Amino acid sequence: MNEQPLRVDEAELRGLLDGQWAYVRERARDVLQGEDFAPVTGLSLQEHRALTTERLGKLATTGMQTYGFPEEVGGSGDVGASVVAFEMLVPDLSLMVKMGVQWGLFGGAISALGTERHHREYLPGVMSLDLPGCFAMTETGHGSDVQSLRTTATYDPKTEEFVLHTPDESARKDYIGNAARDGRMAVVFAQLHSAGIDHGVHALMVPIRDEDGMPAPGVTIEDCGHKAGLNGVDNGRIWFDQVRVPRTDLLNRYGDVGPDGAYTSPIESKNRRFFTMLGTLIRGRISVAGGAGSATKAALSIAVRYGDTRRQFTRPGPDGEPEREVRILDYLAHQRKLLPALARTYALHFAQEELVTRLHELHDSEERDERAQRELESRAAGLKAMSTWHATDTIQTCREACGGAGYMSQNRIPQLKADSDIFTTFEGDNTVLLQQLTKGLLTNFQDAFGDLDQMGLVKFMAGKVFENVIERTAAVPLIDRLIAAAPGRGGNSSLYNRGWQIELLEDREKHVVEGLAARIRRARKDDGRDAFEVFNHAQDHVLRAGRVHMERVVLEAFVAGIDRCGDTSTAKLLNRLCDLYVMSVIEEDRAWFLEHERLSTARAKAVTAAVNELCQGLRPYAVQLVDAFGLREEWLAAPIALGREHDRQGDPVPERVRN
Amino acid sequence: MNEQPLRVDEAELRGLLDGQWAYVRERARDVLQGEDFAPVTGLSLQEHRALTTERLGKLATTGMQTYGFPEEVGGSGDVGASVVAFEMLVPDLSLMVKMGVQWGLFGGAISALGTERHHREYLPGVMSLDLPGCFAMTETGHGSDVQSLRTTATYDPKTEEFVLHTPDESARKDYIGNAARDGRMAVVFAQLHSAGIDHGVHALMVPIRDEDGMPAPGVTIEDCGHKAGLNGVDNGRIWFDQVRVPRTDLLNRYGDVGPDGAYTSPIESKNRRFFTMLGTLIRGRISVAGGAGSATKAALSIAVRYGDTRRQFTRPGPDGEPEREVRILDYLAHQRKLLPALARTYALHFAQEELVTRLHELHDSEERDERAQRELESRAAGLKAMSTWHATDTIQTCREACGGAGYMSQNRIPQLKADSDIFTTFEGDNTVLLQQLTKGLLTNFQDAFGDLDQMGLVKFMAGKVFENVIERTAAVPLIDRLIAAAPGRGGNSSLYNRGWQIELLEDREKHVVEGLAARIRRARKDDGRDAFEVFNHAQDHVLRAGRVHMERVVLEAFVAGIDRCGDTSTAKLLNRLCDLYVMSVIEEDRAWFLEHERLSTARAKAVTAAVNELCQGLRPYAVQLVDAFGLREEWLAAPIALGREHDRQGDPVPERVRN
Repeated sequence: MNEQPLRVDEAELRGLLDGQWAYVRERARDVLQGEDFAPVTGLSLQEHRALTTERLGKLATTGMQTYGFPEEVGGSGDVGASVVAFEMLVPDLSLMVKMGVQWGLFGGAISALGTERHHREYLPGVMSLDLPGCFAMTETGHGSDVQSLRTTATYDPKTEEFVLHTPDESARKDYIGNAARDGRMAVVFAQLHSAGIDHGVHALMVPIRDEDGMPAPGVTIEDCGHKAGLNGVDNGRIWFDQVRVPRTDLLNRYGDVGPDGAYTSPIESKNRRFFTMLGTLIRGRISVAGGAGSATKAALSIAVRYGDTRRQFTRPGPDGEPEREVRILDYLAHQRKLLPALARTYALHFAQEELVTRLHELHDSEERDERAQRELESRAAGLKAMSTWHATDTIQTCREACGGAGYMSQNRIPQLKADSDIFTTFEGDNTVLLQQLTKGLLTNFQDAFGDLDQMGLVKFMAGKVFENVIERTAAVPLIDRLIAAAPGRGGNSSLYNRGWQIELLEDREKHVVEGLAARIRRARKDDGRDAFEVFNHAQDHVLRAGRVHMERVVLEAFVAGIDRCGDTSTAKLLNRLCDLYVMSVIEEDRAWFLEHERLSTARAKAVTAAVNELCQGLRPYAVQLVDAFGLREEWLAAPIALGREHDRQGDPVPERVRN
Repeated sequence: MNEQPLRVDEAELRGLLDGQWAYVRERARDVLQGEDFAPVTGLSLQEHRALTTERLGKLATTGMQTYGFPEEVGGSGDVGASVVAFEMLVPDLSLMVKMGVQWGLFGGAISALGTERHHREYLPGVMSLDLPGCFAMTETGHGSDVQSLRTTATYDPKTEEFVLHTPDESARKDYIGNAARDGRMAVVFAQLHSAGIDHGVHALMVPIRDEDGMPAPGVTIEDCGHKAGLNGVDNGRIWFDQVRVPRTDLLNRYGDVGPDGAYTSPIESKNRRFFTMLGTLIRGRISVAGGAGSATKAALSIAVRYGDTRRQFTRPGPDGEPEREVRILDYLAHQRKLLPALARTYALHFAQEELVTRLHELHDSEERDERAQRELESRAAGLKAMSTWHATDTIQTCREACGGAGYMSQNRIPQLKADSDIFTTFEGDNTVLLQQLTKGLLTNFQDAFGDLDQMGLVKFMAGKVFENVIERTAAVPLIDRLIAAAPGRGGNSSLYNRGWQIELLEDREKHVVEGLAARIRRARKDDGRDAFEVFNHAQDHVLRAGRVHMERVVLEAFVAGIDRCGDTSTAKLLNRLCDLYVMSVIEEDRAWFLEHERLSTARAKAVTAAVNELCQGLRPYAVQLVDAFGLREEWLAAPIALGREHDRQGDPVPERVRN
C-alpha cells in the first residue's frame, strides 16, 4: 500500500455507483430538496404521521411513484426504477416506508395478484393517493409462517360475496402500515374457503374505512401506538367481523371463484400456488435491502466525515514542533470501526444493483422461467438478510464512532438507527430468510419446491445425493477467468490475488453446504431422531451456510462492478476496497479456515495484518468514497457531517440570545 | 447434559444475586411501584422532562438518594448502596440518569472534591433537590481528553474571585445533564490560573440560573434538544462570559488558592493531582456499568419470557399426533441468540458486585492505598466497557428476537435500547477506556502514573522488561485451588473442567499482553518509527488485551459467586451457565486459540458443539434464570413478557370500541 496516491475520477465513480437507474437517482436528487423533504426530529406521534402523509402527497405530485406500475394505467412499467426510487428516500425513512406501503405493497399486490379489472379500477387511485391502502398480511399469531395465518374468507354463493372474518385474537392483522390513520382499503390475506374446501391463502380487496375516515362496518381498528422508529408510519391492528366484499374483489390472478363457488386456478398444487403468489411480492423484500443500504450509506457518510475532522488527544509534531491533536480517523481503531464497514457497503451496493437488474429482467421477460424466479427469490432472501444486518451493525458503530454527538437527534444517526432497526424483521425475519436460502441451496430447488417447511427439506435430503449447489452470479466468465489465473490451492499466493480469494470463498461455501447435507443424512440414519430434531440441532450450521453463500455472491458482484469501471486509477482504489471486504470477511471467519486447514496459522495472522494495512492505506480516500454515494448534504443534515462542528477551537463565541 | 432435571432453589438464587446490598434492592422493589415510577413512552420532549423532574422529586422523598452522602450531612455513607440504588431504577432509565446526574455526579463531585464547608453549604440542598445541579466537565472539543479542556478559571486577587470564561466555541460545555431546564448550579471543570500559572483542571461551584430559572449573568445556555433516548434528561450547552465566583467556591480538597493567589496542593505533581481528582469520581463509571446490567436484564427477561411462549412453525406431534407449533425458544438458533447472552449477563453481574464491594471497602478504609485505587480504576474502566457493549449487543438481539413485537414501544425494548445506547460513550468512551486498562496492565501502574497519554506508555515500555501483569481478583485461593486441580496443559481434559478453563483464559491474557509489550519494544528498536505510529499500529492489539483481561476477571468473579451459593442443585445449574459463558467466550475467539496452538482443530470444533449442547440443556431453566434477577413485572411492563400476548389462538375477539 506504500504506493503513489491514487487520483480518483469522482464522476466515473459516481456514475458506476449510480448504475443502470442513474436517471432515477438524479431525479430523486433533483426532487427531494428543501423543507418539503428535509429530515425532521422531535415531533409528536400525531404531528409526525400528519407530516408524513402530507409529504407522501407531495411525493405523489413528482411522479416518482409511477415507475413500477403498468403502462396501461399510466405507469412506466419500470420495475427496477421503482426499487431504486424507494431507496432514494434517504432524508426521511418514514416517508420511504410509507411510500413502500402505499405503492410497493398495497399497489404492488394489486398489480401482481389482481387482474385487469382490478388494475383499471384501483391502480389510478393508488398512484394518485385518492385511495390510500394497506397490505394486511401479518397476524399477531403468524408473521413468518404466512401459510398458517387464520383470517378466513368464506364464499357465500347466495349473495356472491366473500365473508372476511377474524376467528380469534391470534388472527387479528397486526403491525399493518397505513392502518391506524390513513388506509381506506386493504389487500387482506386470508384462507379462502368455498363450498367447504380450504384453498389456502388468497388476497382480497377490503374496505376498512368510509369516506369520513370511520372504520367500515364490521371492521375494528386499533392503533399500534408509538414504535422504536418510523413513527411517521401509522401501524395498526385490524379485526374483521363477518365483513362482506363482492366476489370480484378477490385478486384472482392465481385463483378464482366462480359465481357458483367453483374454484379455479392456473396452478394445481396448493403449496406451489401459495409460493408462486408470495414470489410475485418479492419486490418489497428487495426494496428493503436497498433501503437498508441507503441508511447505512447515510450513517457512514456522517461518521466518516466527522472522523476526518474531529480531533482528540495529541501526538508530537514533526521535528520538535509542538504537539497537535490527531484526527480520530487517523487512529487504527477508528479506521477498523468504519472502513471494513464501508468496503462491505460498496460490495452490497453492487450486489443490490445486480439483484434489481435480475428482478427487472425477469419481470420484463415474456415467458416465465421457474428456475430463474426461484434463484431470484433465494438471492433476495439472502441479500435482504445480509444488507439489513449490516445496516444495524454499521449504524450502531457509527453512533459510537461519533460519541456524544452521535446521540443527538440533530446529527441524524439516532433516527437512521431507530428507523432502520425493523428492517431485519419486516419483509421476512432475517433468521427465517437465511434458512430458506440454505434450503434452496441444499435442494437446488428441485423437487422440494413447496416444501419450505423444515420437514420437507429433511425428507428430501435423506434420500438424495447433494450436488451442483453453487449458483453462479451474472459475472460467470469474468469469475472463471480470475479463478483460472489463480495459483493452485497449495500455492501460497498473495492474499490480494483475486482469483485465490474467490476460490477460497467458493471452497468454503461448497464445504459448508456439503457438510450440512452429509450431517443431516447421517443424523437421520444413525440416531433415528425425528426430522425436526435433526434439523434443529444443525440450525447454526444452516444459518452459516446461507451466510457464506451470500458472502461469495456479494464478492462476485463487487468484482463485476469494478470490471465496469472505466478509469484505471479509480478501479485500483476499488480493488483495494474489495481487498478490504474480502480480508475482513476472512478475518471474521478465520477460525473456520483454520479448523478446516484452508489457512495456515501464519497466513491467518497475515490476514489480520492485511486488514490493518488496507485500513491505513484507504484512510486518505475515505471521504471521497462516501461522497461518491451521492447523498445530498441536506439529506445528511447532521451538523457534524457538514463542517459546522469542526475546528471550533479558536472560533469566537457567537452572539446569542440569552436563554 | 442428559441428566435429571435440576431443582432450582429460587430464594437461594435470588439471594445470591441480590448480594451484599440486598436491602437496597428490596427497598427499591418496595418503593418503585405504581404509576409514579411506571415505564412511559410516547411523551413529547417537554412532557418527558417535566415528568422526570417530578419523579426525581418523588424519589427524593424515599431517602434512596441519601445512601452515598456523608453521615455528617444526613447521608448514610454507604457508597456501595448508592451504586446499587442507581442500578435499580429499571422502570425508568431517564430517571436513573437524572438521579445519577443530580446525586451521583453533581453531589458526588461536591462530596469528593469539596471540603467540609462545601459539604455543609451545598449537600443538604443537593439531597433534598432544593439545589438542582450539573456536572459540567465535557466540552464540545474535548470529551475523552479531559486534561485538554479549555474553559478557564482565572483568580483575581483584587476581588478574591475566580473568573470563569469560555474562550472559544470548542470550549463550550456540551451534553451537560440538567443544564437545559433544571440546573441552578454547576460543578464546572476548568483550567485554574493564578498569578500567571496554569495549575491544571479543577472544579468550581458556579451558579448558572437564578431563582426564576433565568440564566445567571454571563451564562448562556442552549438546549441540546432531542436525543436518541433519555429524553427525560435535559442536556444542554453552557458558555461562560467572565463569570465571577467567590474564591471559596473552588472545590479545594486537592488544590486551593489563598486570598493572595498562592496555590497549594497536597499533591505536588500536576499530572498526578489531575488523575487523583478524576479517580475520586470513579463511582459514576461503576454506576453506569451497573445500569447497563439492569437494562440488559430487563431486555433479556422480556425476550426470554416471550420466546418461552411464542410459537411459530410446526413440528409433528409424537406418535402420529397432529402437528403442533414450536415455541421459538426451542429453536437452537433462538437459544444461541439469548442464552450465551444470559450467561454473560450473570457473569458480569457477579463481576459488578465484586467491583462495587471493592469501591465500598476502599472508600471506607482509613488510609489511602494507591495501588488498590489504581486497580479499582482500571477494573472500573474495563467492566464499564464490557458491560455497556454487552448491553448494546444484547438489547439489540432481544429486539430482533421479539420480531415486530420488539419494535413496539409498549414492549419496552425500544426504550431500553435507545436509553442505554449512550452508556458505551458517557462516563468514558469504551474504546478509550479499554486502552487505559491495557496501559495499566502493561506498566502495572508503576512509574507511568500520570502518563496515561499514548506517549508515556511507549516511553516506559521501551526501557523496561514486562512482568507481573495479571491482576488477581478477590477470589485468589479458590482460583488457585481450581487451577491446581486442572490437568496439565498438554492433557486433553474435559472442556468443562473449570481449572482448565481458567488456565486457558489466563494463559491467553498473559500471551496477548506480553506479545503486545514485545511488539512495541521491537517496533521502536527496529523501525525507528515515532512513538505515536508504533502505538497506533498496535491499537487493535491494545484493545484486544483489555478485552481478554476482562473476560478472565469476569470468569473469576462468576466462579467466586457460584462458590457462595448455598444450594447444591442451584450451584450445579449456575456451573452449567458458567460453562456456557466460558465456551461462548472461547468460541468467539477460537481463531486466536488455533493460531496460537492453544486448541487443536478438533477441540475448537468441540467448543462449538459444547455451546449448542449447553444451550439446549439450559433452555428449560431460562425463565427461572431471568426471573431470579428480581425485576418486578410492572418494571418489565411489556405485554409480551406478561402472558398477555400468549396463546391467543382460540381466545375470543374482545368487545372493543370502534375507532
